[in-house]
Amino acid sequence: MDAIWPASSALREVAIFRSLDVRLLTRLGTIGEIAVLAPRTELFRQGETPAALHFLLHGQVILSGSVPDGTQAVIEVLTPGACFVVASVLIDRPYLVSATTVAAARILKLEAAALRAMIRSDPEIALALVGTLARNYRSMTRQIRDLKLRTTTQRLGCYLLSLIADRTLAPARVRLPFHKALLAGRLGCRQDSLSRAFAALRELGVETRGSTIIVHDVARLEAYATPDEIAEEAA
Amino acid sequence: MDAIWPASSALREVAIFRSLDVRLLTRLGTIGEIAVLAPRTELFRQGETPAALHFLLHGQVILSGSVPDGTQAVIEVLTPGACFVVASVLIDRPYLVSATTVAAARILKLEAAALRAMIRSDPEIALALVGTLARNYRSMTRQIRDLKLRTTTQRLGCYLLSLIADRTLAPARVRLPFHKALLAGRLGCRQDSLSRAFAALRELGVETRGSTIIVHDVARLEAYATPDEIAEEAA
Repeated sequence: MDAIWPASSALREVAIFRSLDVRLLTRLGTIGEIAVLAPRTELFRQGETPAALHFLLHGQVILSGSVPDGTQAVIEVLTPGACFVVASVLIDRPYLVSATTVAAARILKLEAAALRAMIRSDPEIALALVGTLARNYRSMTRQIRDLKLRTTTQRLGCYLLSLIADRTLAPARVRLPFHKALLAGRLGCRQDSLSRAFAALRELGVETRGSTIIVHDVARLEAYATPDEIAEEAA
Repeated sequence: MDAIWPASSALREVAIFRSLDVRLLTRLGTIGEIAVLAPRTELFRQGETPAALHFLLHGQVILSGSVPDGTQAVIEVLTPGACFVVASVLIDRPYLVSATTVAAARILKLEAAALRAMIRSDPEIALALVGTLARNYRSMTRQIRDLKLRTTTQRLGCYLLSLIADRTLAPARVRLPFHKALLAGRLGCRQDSLSRAFAALRELGVETRGSTIIVHDVARLEAYATPDEIAEEAA
């Protein structure tokens, strides 16, 4: 019982399930559990058979990939609201990434096989997940666009611009949501390249004070970094 | 009428629709049309509102991205069987890529708004598309893994290995399915880097004769290129 009720109430926090009726939320609650995890805890490893669909309720999680020679890379840094490994769970194929908490995290997990069975009997659940999967797909496509079309310095510029809530304010002040080693991984560069990128942006009016960044001239940074003009819908 | 019947019969060629009953295939046929296109024809441009879900029946299509300064990159080269822009069509957000035929192509298009309406009334169609979207998502994730974890020469090696049907044959002989300028774009490098990568692989027993590649020692190439060990399910 203890494991069931917290999951049911956490499901109401998940944006994509808001349109589901109480009956379906209750059914989903029976296959859910909440995990509260310490920093640097491994959730799962690439290559494993998917055990659960994950929702990050609180904290930060890194998705990373590795190849047999030991090389590792950050694929994505997740913040609260993220739903992850949807694709692997839905088609029951091995995880392509490993997941590890950065800080302490609270995670809602829905048991994979039971979820697939429920989707077949209640396709409304499939419709709720399709939107998430589509948004996750578009986020991966944007990352490939970013890696293939922009220099490291432009990628950093685009990332900083994405953190600015109101681009008409001058100067704009943002806080990096995670530390610079993770940021380098997310941007697909080494830490020394990231430092050079910050130095290059300084000449465009981007000032760094620890994890606080002040963008003195947003329009100038936009002209340099060429961010995507195609807006995304919120979850 | 002319536009409807060809679409109905083409729908039977699409693997993901094989499990649908005749009634649903007939309904999908009413919102479908077949386009026969000349080489280098633009199908749509990034930023446009999605008009149709696309299935490539014959030929080759490039998905490419560009940024305002004019820089362009190949995001994916599609071969027959591909279903594309699923994510954009399902959530009705602007295309993140432009699509252009390479050679002459035959394409099945399902009208976007009508398809979304049909998904709500017949969720079986959603279940058929979820699998495609999930496989497309995994393909993008693999590309990000590739771009972040491997050198250009390793990426070329992995690509060649993916073309070999039977890795136990020696030597293995493969044909590049598209020309080298496209291959460079797909691998995220410039053409001169691709030439250097082919030269570097020669020392590992990879011989190039035009668009035919002979891999004399598959195990040696695997050890060098570290291909993903996680197999994908067929469509």
